[in-house]
Parts: sequence; C-alpha cells; structure tokens
Amino acid sequence: MTLDEPAVAALLDAVAWTPTGLVSCVAQQHDTGEVLMVAWMDRVAIRETLATGRVCYFSRSRNWLWRKGETSGQVQRLVELRLDCDGDALLALVDQAGAACHTGRRSCFYRAARDGVLAVIADPIADPAELYGRSEAAP
Amino acid sequence: MTLDEPAVAALLDAVAWTPTGLVSCVAQQHDTGEVLMVAWMDRVAIRETLATGRVCYFSRSRNWLWRKGETSGQVQRLVELRLDCDGDALLALVDQAGAACHTGRRSCFYRAARDGVLAVIADPIADPAELYGRSEAAP
Repeated sequence: MTLDEPAVAALLDAVAWTPTGLVSCVAQQHDTGEVLMVAWMDRVAIRETLATGRVCYFSRSRNWLWRKGETSGQVQRLVELRLDCDGDALLALVDQAGAACHTGRRSCFYRAARDGVLAVIADPIADPAELYGRSEAAP
Repeated sequence: MTLDEPAVAALLDAVAWTPTGLVSCVAQQHDTGEVLMVAWMDRVAIRETLATGRVCYFSRSRNWLWRKGETSGQVQRLVELRLDCDGDALLALVDQAGAACHTGRRSCFYRAARDGVLAVIADPIADPAELYGRSEAAP
C-alpha cells in the first residue's frame, strides 16, 4: 500500500470532526462482513493507517495512537477506508488477524438482548492473557 | 416482536452512555452484512426499537426521536440488537427496506479514498425528492 496523498487530503477535508478532533470508525472484515469493533481515529491515525496499510486508532483512555495489534499481534490490514454521507463516521474494511476484541473474541459485539438477558453469544478464540500478557488490554 | 423487559433493562444497564445520554449504533443488513449507517440512540429510542421491532434513533440535529423511515418509508426492521465489550457502541442487525441513506443510496458509506480522490462508489437506488418530498431529509 502506498500513500495516496490527494485522496488522504480529500478524506480529511470531508470528515466532520468532533470538538476534540476525532471521528468514529467501524471496522468490518472485508470478506465475511463481520462487524468487528468501533473505535476512534484522529488525523494522525488516519494518515498512518492509509500510509502503512495497518489500522491505527486513537485511544481516548491512553490519549495516544493505538496501533491495533501492537501488543497482541492481532493486527488489522486495511483494505479500504470509506466515509459516510455526513462525514462523522468511517468504515474500515479490514483483514483482521485473529481476535479484534481485547476479550479474545473475534468481534467486540458479543452480547445481545435475548431471552430475558444480555446474552453472551460468542466464545473467545484466543486467551487474552496470552495476547496481552500482564500489560493492560486495549483500549 | 414482543418487549423483553428483563433483556431491555440488562442492555440499558450495560451501556456506557455519553454525557448527554446517547450511545452510537451501527446498522447492518442482517443477511448480506452491508454496513448501512451509524447513528445515535438514547434510552427511549432503544426501548421503542425493542418494543416495536422498528429501529428508532435519536437525532441530535432535531433533538428528538428519529423513527427511521417515518417520512421516507425506508424502514429498518430489527433482527437483533447487540452491544460491544466496553458498552459504548450498539450493533443493530436489521432488515432495511430500500435506501438507508438520505441521499437515496443503500448505504451511507458511499465514499472511499481511492485513486487520488474521495470517490463516490455507489449510485442512488431511490430519488431523495420522492422519498422525502419537500421535507427535510434525516438526520
């Protein structure tokens, strides 16, 4: 993947940033369509994502760039970055290695309102302790 | 669809609300996997969505409930409502009638960083003027 500066500039210009300079991003597995997670990006994260082809978010809790998979190895390779009609949400089509969720599940959306409870509908596919060791799991 | 009060209560308890009492919601077509849009919900919108089986958002610009399809007829029937690991995003699996986007496109994510521009990658499937008449398009 090579940086397409005019496209990056056009995208950044079209984003409707929050007051703190962020935009939300939905990550979707490009071939299966699974919605994996939702996180934030700032200008730097978007530039890095488009330059490297590896998805980088902005962690509000760390107040810093969050290079997805940096600790866990569960990286997201970017396939395409899309923007919605009013510019306040991105859709990243990605190729997710292993688990997107810090709980070791493929997707962060593993709870559903079902049968009188908030049911857990997916099992971990990886052990968070192995993915993150003793360090704090993202985000 | 009948209201599952214990599940609703469990879901509402698990949401990490914004300071203004909102949570973002990704709408995905349940069978094709298309990501259609991202919008906001408040407690009332979630309750109405789960009670009626028709997706209701909260419009920040109108500061009121936004019953998806109320003007345009392009309703979203709810299949399942899911919550992510940290509680700050919902995933609504829906059955979308026609166009989710107020531009008449199936999905709001019709722009992509491609080939030096922010390219328009999908055509309208409906005429917004026919969907919305002279009234203001949502959101």
